[in-house]
Amino acid sequence: MGRTNQFPSLAILVLVLVLVLVLECSATPISKIRAHPHPCKRLVFYFHDILYNGHNSKNATAAIVGSPAWGNRTILTGQNHFGNMVVFDDPITLDNNLHSTPVGRAQGFYLYDKKDIFTAWLGFSFVFNSTEHKGSINFAGADPLMNKTNISVIGGTGDFFLTRGIATLSTDAFEGEVYFRLRVDIKLYECW
Amino acid sequence: MGRTNQFPSLAILVLVLVLVLVLECSATPISKIRAHPHPCKRLVFYFHDILYNGHNSKNATAAIVGSPAWGNRTILTGQNHFGNMVVFDDPITLDNNLHSTPVGRAQGFYLYDKKDIFTAWLGFSFVFNSTEHKGSINFAGADPLMNKTNISVIGGTGDFFLTRGIATLSTDAFEGEVYFRLRVDIKLYECW
Amino acid sequence: MGRTNQFPSLAILVLVLVLVLVLECSATPISKIRAHPHPCKRLVFYFHDILYNGHNSKNATAAIVGSPAWGNRTILTGQNHFGNMVVFDDPITLDNNLHSTPVGRAQGFYLYDKKDIFTAWLGFSFVFNSTEHKGSINFAGADPLMNKTNISVIGGTGDFFLTRGIATLSTDAFEGEVYFRLRVDIKLYECW
Repeated sequence: MGRTNQFPSLAILVLVLVLVLVLECSATPISKIRAHPHPCKRLVFYFHDILYNGHNSKNATAAIVGSPAWGNRTILTGQNHFGNMVVFDDPITLDNNLHSTPVGRAQGFYLYDKKDIFTAWLGFSFVFNSTEHKGSINFAGADPLMNKTNISVIGGTGDFFLTRGIATLSTDAFEGEVYFRLRVDIKLYECW
Repeated sequence: MGRTNQFPSLAILVLVLVLVLVLECSATPISKIRAHPHPCKRLVFYFHDILYNGHNSKNATAAIVGSPAWGNRTILTGQNHFGNMVVFDDPITLDNNLHSTPVGRAQGFYLYDKKDIFTAWLGFSFVFNSTEHKGSINFAGADPLMNKTNISVIGGTGDFFLTRGIATLSTDAFEGEVYFRLRVDIKLYECW
Repeated sequence: MGRTNQFPSLAILVLVLVLVLVLECSATPISKIRAHPHPCKRLVFYFHDILYNGHNSKNATAAIVGSPAWGNRTILTGQNHFGNMVVFDDPITLDNNLHSTPVGRAQGFYLYDKKDIFTAWLGFSFVFNSTEHKGSINFAGADPLMNKTNISVIGGTGDFFLTRGIATLSTDAFEGEVYFRLRVDIKLYECW
């Protein structure tokens, strides 16, 4: 008798647990605090920025298009280029060699936004159209140029549909104020 | 006897399954690879860009505000307008007629960022304040103007609170270098 | 006999429920419609924008870097400054006092993008490096300056790793066309 009562109560316990679970699942834990996950994809690229300086229109991949009243658009302004806005269309390569076959283009803009040190704000996309990757990754964020920094991966299309993550930028090399090479270590945390 | 042992072991099996499930649910599968979902909302709009050309200040909805050293801000520069930055405040309509009642405004900027073909990088918002939609949708991404392309929906407010998705842009019509009509097919994958 | 059959069927029922649940959980409810959640973090800051006007280069934290053909870069243009693009590097404070110790810098740009009323489109980051906060929060969106409005939190780094949310901007004070103080009420809905 005692044992026959035991089974239904076990079943009820399980049902309650299941119900709790259903409620938990449908409660969308999105607004809760989560532990740091591992990236679902990790990619490293280089891109190469050759800034127009009045003499290199053939090779240039970037140009100053905005500057404050005290500057002009051929030479980067003083005060750490504060206020200069640069538009770029740079080749992306898998290694640090400017002459390697590009796997895509880095397209967008950066603006120098600090008076006392070099700092930039960037909005740009990696546009891929190779056998390995099709689609785009979109980035935005602040970059203290002379340090490693993280910016946000704010979205993507194609192979990178709806992705999100972090990109660590570092200035890998620069020559004068004309050539800049950036290393981008992309860690994606939402893959579809 | 055999049968009376069977019931508790079944219950234990179920409990283990439930536990596994609880752990799985709380492990936030965000960093896992997911299958392509269906949009939770789909919207199609048109927006109409009338670029200031020195003679149309009354009708113009957009103006060149940045250009490289070799250009000016009244006429789009050569080399596929590379470096031109345009700010716009364009009416959004439900059909392709410029004179239809606008349901909102498309506000933001685009910049021509490629020397060899037309390509733009866009950052803009759709700002709605109609009976049907209130709030905004924010977009960013690269757009090869002469092809259909996808850019990212990076966020939203109001009716589009925290949304994410993809927007397919296509140049629906253009007249000279003054009037451009863009069709935007918005697919949202996160709705609240 | 009837009772001994009852237990397996109960167990099967529970197993089916569990299976349904497993499928539901693994189906990533991301593309479903969700109820408004509560923020997982809420922060209020002020930032202070002192626009360069030709006479205040020492104190200025912002400068006009783009303007339409009919304007210049020292004085904001007519027609509600339509087309003016401003780059800024503003101190962030915890209260509304410009002279409080900054907890970080607001870096990025805004552009006036409406002819008939004041409206801006903003892309910027809060960059923190204090004992309380390290990392950055990235914002984008349209802001009708004379009203409270919501823009999107599109990502973050460091303490704000991969965050998303809403920021309510309000112009807390302004003096002429030189000093603007903005209050930012940040509500984050994805915390890691």
